Amino acid sequence: MFFEGSEKKIEIVTRPDVPSLRTLGQAYWKQLVEKAHAEILSMVSNELCDAYLLSESSLFVWDDRCLMLTCGTTTLVDAATLFIEDQGVAAIDFFSYQRKNEYQPHLQRTTIAHDLQQLRELLPMSACQFGYLDSHHHYLFWSAAPDYQPLTDDRTSELLMYHITGPAALRLNCEEQQLTTIRELLDLKTLLPGFKLDDFLFQPCGYSVNAIKEHHYATIHITPQQSSSYVSFETNLDLGGEYSWIVRRLLDELQPQSWDTVGFNCAPLTPKKAEYLAIGSCAVDLECGYQVIFSHHLDHQLQQLPVRRL
Amino acid sequence: MFFEGSEKKIEIVTRPDVPSLRTLGQAYWKQLVEKAHAEILSMVSNELCDAYLLSESSLFVWDDRCLMLTCGTTTLVDAATLFIEDQGVAAIDFFSYQRKNEYQPHLQRTTIAHDLQQLRELLPMSACQFGYLDSHHHYLFWSAAPDYQPLTDDRTSELLMYHITGPAALRLNCEEQQLTTIRELLDLKTLLPGFKLDDFLFQPCGYSVNAIKEHHYATIHITPQQSSSYVSFETNLDLGGEYSWIVRRLLDELQPQSWDTVGFNCAPLTPKKAEYLAIGSCAVDLECGYQVIFSHHLDHQLQQLPVRRL
Repeated sequence: MFFEGSEKKIEIVTRPDVPSLRTLGQAYWKQLVEKAHAEILSMVSNELCDAYLLSESSLFVWDDRCLMLTCGTTTLVDAATLFIEDQGVAAIDFFSYQRKNEYQPHLQRTTIAHDLQQLRELLPMSACQFGYLDSHHHYLFWSAAPDYQPLTDDRTSELLMYHITGPAALRLNCEEQQLTTIRELLDLKTLLPGFKLDDFLFQPCGYSVNAIKEHHYATIHITPQQSSSYVSFETNLDLGGEYSWIVRRLLDELQPQSWDTVGFNCAPLTPKKAEYLAIGSCAVDLECGYQVIFSHHLDHQLQQLPVRRL
Repeated sequence: MFFEGSEKKIEIVTRPDVPSLRTLGQAYWKQLVEKAHAEILSMVSNELCDAYLLSESSLFVWDDRCLMLTCGTTTLVDAATLFIEDQGVAAIDFFSYQRKNEYQPHLQRTTIAHDLQQLRELLPMSACQFGYLDSHHHYLFWSAAPDYQPLTDDRTSELLMYHITGPAALRLNCEEQQLTTIRELLDLKTLLPGFKLDDFLFQPCGYSVNAIKEHHYATIHITPQQSSSYVSFETNLDLGGEYSWIVRRLLDELQPQSWDTVGFNCAPLTPKKAEYLAIGSCAVDLECGYQVIFSHHLDHQLQQLPVRRL
């Protein structure tokens, strides 16, 4: 039983003169999501943001930007392509596409090289790979209008946790999973106080939650399958600063054997914990003003590796 | 510039009443090697073994067993299939097929699942995966005749070194590579005294050497490409015991950022070196009497990860 939790992600900022993306309406986003081979399951809104929960991850739409995350074998590149074609290159201030290395890349519908080529047919696109091919690594493609500069509070953080252990692993177990237990485990009321929540329990297993408060978002996706367990937490809260306690709390609760962070204009998320060793890190300054930092951490105790009979 | 150094490996032991495999002759092995999409480049022999150097790795043939290693995008499973069909299931005492996780699995001609299915059409085949999908891991398929028991000195060791650093990385560099420099670096006369050697320098880069002495073999394959540098050392010398100094010496010389070992009936190859941390290990007892141990080691210093522009 395998599910590819590893996500692809697009973030698009529109030009100041472009009409609000929220006015495009749900029917528009529905066909965009379907282009990626996913579906909209539900939606919550506040005065600044529409948050769609998808069959494979999430879509957030603000007036001037949108963010879409998809996992499994989705083709997020096709949704990105449709958006660029529909809205036009002139409407885009900043475009980024991230894809992290998959557990099983040969099961994906498209390769990194294919995605890059497809996007470069539409937009000039810088691209790089962070990290070694034989370990956790990420791809980032980006394109910015010449005069684009990110707002000072424009930061996003990703905390990606692999191989969940301890009591959390038991509670997330596919046979045992219950919505109440997972909500209790994550304690979202404490983790994200005042946020409007929209969550979903998948069959046979898996859990997603979208959370919004003013212009802030957070989203958690849980892939509990034992051979590839993975929990991602993504947000525009400042996890490298004021909200760094969220990182500590999630690591304590989920006890991952390894975890990565990707931050855009966000201080490194590296709580000093004796159990973890920062084993690799790198940073890239995008010309338009984002600094992207990737780091990879590992439980430093000798791990009894799994032996899986095939 | 990418080359997949990660190897696939078959080892086959024939029944005592089967004629010597060496009498099959070079023409036989030539077509077998071609079936895997590789070629024979040269051959050395002694009284017990024929060692073929291949365009992608190596083939060793003894009277009662053969061992073939191939890298790149070769289809070793097809060579294995042809051998089993030619010689017949009744001729085989023990068969094993190993495949380590590739840097770029989506570039391979066949998947693990395909290889296993193809082999299971010919032989009952046990199979397992060692280690996590998102880190170094290996697949092992095996089949043994009910009365088969390995000889007491039947042991093999693999030392697989990733991300070569320091002076060795500079000397193996594609632009600089020279046969004399690599021979000097490896110092094979000291590393493998009394062994008959057969080596080859590939264009644009890469190096292989086969070494035989009595029934012992050793083989080294170097993939120096910076984005995926990899050196493998495989042998039936006892690297967990009498020859453990070879492991220390290769690690000192090549300074890999991570290294794995796979041993069949061989004590773990874990020299105490302050630079390295054993981060994962597992063992499997095959019913016929082999114990297989896999372990994964990492340089414990924070690594400045590469950022590669695409």
